[in-house]
Amino acid sequence: MKQMMGKQSLELKNEVYVISGSSIAGSKEKEGPLGLCFDRTKEDPMMGMNSWEEAESALQEEAASLAIEKAGIMKEQIRMIFAGDLLAQSIASSFGIMKLGLPLYGLYGACSTMGEALSLGAMAVDGGYADFVLTLTSSHFGSAEKEFRFPLEYGNQRPLSAGWTVTGSGACVLGNKKSRVKITGITTGRIVDYGLKDSQNMGACMAPAACDTICASLRDFARKPEDYDRVITGDLGSIGQRILLALLREQGIDLHRQHLDCGMLIYDQDTQDTHAGGSGCGCAATVLTAYILPHLESGEWKRVLFVPTGALLSKVSFYEGMSVPGIAHGVILEHVPG
Amino acid sequence: MKQMMGKQSLELKNEVYVISGSSIAGSKEKEGPLGLCFDRTKEDPMMGMNSWEEAESALQEEAASLAIEKAGIMKEQIRMIFAGDLLAQSIASSFGIMKLGLPLYGLYGACSTMGEALSLGAMAVDGGYADFVLTLTSSHFGSAEKEFRFPLEYGNQRPLSAGWTVTGSGACVLGNKKSRVKITGITTGRIVDYGLKDSQNMGACMAPAACDTICASLRDFARKPEDYDRVITGDLGSIGQRILLALLREQGIDLHRQHLDCGMLIYDQDTQDTHAGGSGCGCAATVLTAYILPHLESGEWKRVLFVPTGALLSKVSFYEGMSVPGIAHGVILEHVPG
Repeated sequence: MKQMMGKQSLELKNEVYVISGSSIAGSKEKEGPLGLCFDRTKEDPMMGMNSWEEAESALQEEAASLAIEKAGIMKEQIRMIFAGDLLAQSIASSFGIMKLGLPLYGLYGACSTMGEALSLGAMAVDGGYADFVLTLTSSHFGSAEKEFRFPLEYGNQRPLSAGWTVTGSGACVLGNKKSRVKITGITTGRIVDYGLKDSQNMGACMAPAACDTICASLRDFARKPEDYDRVITGDLGSIGQRILLALLREQGIDLHRQHLDCGMLIYDQDTQDTHAGGSGCGCAATVLTAYILPHLESGEWKRVLFVPTGALLSKVSFYEGMSVPGIAHGVILEHVPG
Repeated sequence: MKQMMGKQSLELKNEVYVISGSSIAGSKEKEGPLGLCFDRTKEDPMMGMNSWEEAESALQEEAASLAIEKAGIMKEQIRMIFAGDLLAQSIASSFGIMKLGLPLYGLYGACSTMGEALSLGAMAVDGGYADFVLTLTSSHFGSAEKEFRFPLEYGNQRPLSAGWTVTGSGACVLGNKKSRVKITGITTGRIVDYGLKDSQNMGACMAPAACDTICASLRDFARKPEDYDRVITGDLGSIGQRILLALLREQGIDLHRQHLDCGMLIYDQDTQDTHAGGSGCGCAATVLTAYILPHLESGEWKRVLFVPTGALLSKVSFYEGMSVPGIAHGVILEHVPG
């Protein structure tokens, strides 16, 4: 049982590689700082479909196929898929990957789902239960606003603390075939609830969970922030980042040199009117595949702690006055020398 | 890579035991044929809380605590929880197990979630990633009707093909500590869609997925129905059972001697007005822990294929005219001689 580290972490010793990553994003994401990094961007937010939900499913379907193609394998070699999204009963995933006809484990970790998918996928490969797995998440601005907030036609004002749900899907093929990036460890997140109830300030709701997971990972692996080139959260945004760095400081951890947030990377805060930053399952997933993996592949970064963050609320829990707890899953990604 | 069997299955060789099971159910379940088998039953459907959702969370919290207590371990020994429910964004689970403060992987597999949780939990134990894991699901008649159908106050008529959502939660502790039941194999389900759109006939929607998983499992392990004492689906109900047996017959498999369905076991079809039978994540989970595990512990049954079934729909997908695809996960449970 040597691979269990501390209380929440696992060291993966059997060489789990990120063989490929794909990113399909929308037009607003194309106009952002990472616009040229995505594999493909789509001008039509409906993806030629009849509903936001079908459009999101189409994003997943394309991201899945592209990741498999880039991995240079046949889809039948994928032993299992780990996938999820933000919609009730995860319908974007169900209808998006149905046609693949592959064994599926459906996940729900809100916007932390890519971290959860990579963690479980890595265990499946490391344990010898699969040669190849597909990990996959998505979000869509239109379907998420409908699911959690107001009809788009209503044109409500959004507070400056709100995020902007990324339209996009990212997929990775993990496996035992050598590539330039491997997963060397994971830290499973716990639900952390500071009692916040403002669903328009998700960064604040999720920052305590990000802090909890980052502290657990550093403790379990006996590492310091300096042992990482970057520690990259999912979608805390600018307000969540401030809170995270302050919470970490209380724990004696100074992360300001290493910390990046996918939600702050994907949009231009000054010109794109996205307020606190990007959010959604598709945010961490597309920034991972379009931006983080290439930096690791090239060796510019040697080791990254990737920490997608999720806010565990629903319309019903919000209306019933419940708090918005958070969860964050940590995945350690390392450069593999050629 | 010897443990991969065929295309969808895994053989688990490192002795994954079901150390304990707990079942908490409602008053209608108490009045049914398994009424005396549940660990605890609750007269108050609100569980003393203010909403159906909080009541469902309370069921999960109690089931989780009881399973840990019955396993004779400290909660801190649980390395990770695999849990999910039917509600949008899985809020019953989030709020139900938050207080445990343990690492969590949230799942969504509709009513197949207990099969998914047992599968992933078994891999985690078999792979040496955890000494003990907790697997857990729930459903609640009130919260499910609100989530998927009509307000209870409306008192709509229900077609005879409809199921009745079980109020209950079941939890299992899996681990490497010897018990009288072990998990020896799993078959990961695929999404199967026959194009059916009737959300009031979920048995018909899920039967093709159950057929697919049972066929895959028998093929991957090179077994016949006679190699099992029972093959037990989750919540097909009486109509789904007829369809399943017919579909299997087309594949040359006669399962009528081995087949049971949790949804048909939990209520008395003649007197309880539950139409096609019980359904919901809590159905397969409570029947597993209250009825199936004891039969395996005593040795009355030596080997069971447990196949929880899920219907992958949401209010939105239904309103948008999408079909109701199904998924089913297979778990092989075997008696361990004393």
